Amino acid sequence: MARDPRHPADLRRPPAEVVLLSAGPGDLELLTLKAVRALQEAEVLLLDELVDPGIVELAPHARVVRVGKRGGCRSTPQAFICRLMRRYALQGLRVVRVKGGEALMFGRAGEEIAFLREAGVPVRIINGVSAAFAAAASLGVSLTHREHCHGVTFVTAHTADHGEPDWDALARGGTTLAIYMGMGRLAGIARALLAHLPAGTPAAVVQGASREDERLVVDTLGGLAEMQATHRGAPGVILVGAALGEAIGVATEAASCMERMVAS
Amino acid sequence: MARDPRHPADLRRPPAEVVLLSAGPGDLELLTLKAVRALQEAEVLLLDELVDPGIVELAPHARVVRVGKRGGCRSTPQAFICRLMRRYALQGLRVVRVKGGEALMFGRAGEEIAFLREAGVPVRIINGVSAAFAAAASLGVSLTHREHCHGVTFVTAHTADHGEPDWDALARGGTTLAIYMGMGRLAGIARALLAHLPAGTPAAVVQGASREDERLVVDTLGGLAEMQATHRGAPGVILVGAALGEAIGVATEAASCMERMVAS
Repeated sequence: MARDPRHPADLRRPPAEVVLLSAGPGDLELLTLKAVRALQEAEVLLLDELVDPGIVELAPHARVVRVGKRGGCRSTPQAFICRLMRRYALQGLRVVRVKGGEALMFGRAGEEIAFLREAGVPVRIINGVSAAFAAAASLGVSLTHREHCHGVTFVTAHTADHGEPDWDALARGGTTLAIYMGMGRLAGIARALLAHLPAGTPAAVVQGASREDERLVVDTLGGLAEMQATHRGAPGVILVGAALGEAIGVATEAASCMERMVAS
Repeated sequence: MARDPRHPADLRRPPAEVVLLSAGPGDLELLTLKAVRALQEAEVLLLDELVDPGIVELAPHARVVRVGKRGGCRSTPQAFICRLMRRYALQGLRVVRVKGGEALMFGRAGEEIAFLREAGVPVRIINGVSAAFAAAASLGVSLTHREHCHGVTFVTAHTADHGEPDWDALARGGTTLAIYMGMGRLAGIARALLAHLPAGTPAAVVQGASREDERLVVDTLGGLAEMQATHRGAPGVILVGAALGEAIGVATEAASCMERMVAS
């Protein structure tokens, strides 16, 4: 039987592990079996804002704490989230920290792992599906089509020191680019890349990959440079590179599923 | 009730879709719920050699066709696999093509999608967990720790034209590098990177990530350059970048779980 985390826990218990759980891009069917099992056993659930709220039904014994963070909005400070995880874990409670996408790509898992390790709290990580893969699945393309590239690079447009990524080196790397957290300045990123890549380079934007409200745009880098930023609501991923050229056929066939996000 | 695919199917049925299914890095608990559902409904299973054979138990109605491919070993030609998928799908049978890791990263999904699309066979893709994420989970590191990098690049050491990736640009991109299919020439890759990155750059090699026989080595780029290639059996991923420095504490604590793959 689950203990009630609202009451003081037995302090003689050793610290429980914290599970950093990847909830995937949206569709809860993309949770792994391992994630479902961890949710079933969870006693405290720390929930990102971007995760489908329906996930709580998979964690029937857990107290749910919402700790969403979102660019530009009011949010729970990272330090508070870390202390909350530590507190519950030191009480011996099974804490599951649910993160959108893949926990080990963006989302500050590195800082949380370091903090918990420092506090003597064991951490276990459960992998999942990151948004760019779900986006590629919807577009019907491989991110690494061998006729076009030899890999894929995932970058965030927001660096810790508020600098810009080295777009020149990234463009020259010969990989597909998957750019996260860039929707707010889509056109600016595209223009920065246009200094290093041809305007006709295939590109796509996918918001809410795998969700019911998913939106796909297939275009070129030059086309993206003329788009205006969309509303900030739906997080999206920007994909750039020759491999995206394979998506254009799909997009044309499925035009009714597509929306131009902007009338520029 | 499943039809028996050994008998001629009803040719009046429309072509069934082919599912390209990501089986993940090894541990079948890393399958998604969506993947498990597709396996339950599968009538023909085309199985990669690297996938845990236990997966067939999740597909009780399927005829299993083994189509493994492995570098340097006898393997089923890609063209034959494509024709096999088309043949069964045109018979109206539910074909699930099971691929190790994430179907849309390496593994030639791009060619298979193009072939099936050309043949008028619908393709559906089910995402999964790629080996580098499972490797990072075992190492207890984020691949994109924001104090160290602003992203991660996945490349294969084997390019379609048998050329080398542009290591200079990849090193300058400021991302963690996750190198696939490089175990056979580990030291050579490390030496190529040493022309562009310091010898003390943290690095790791993980073979069989998430499996029971997983092997972890945490070292530096200079250290990898002195390793000899290990046996070809277990596929591995090579990770290079400052973010891996966060793994060293783990590795030291868990020294008993680690093996030096070589005595160099």
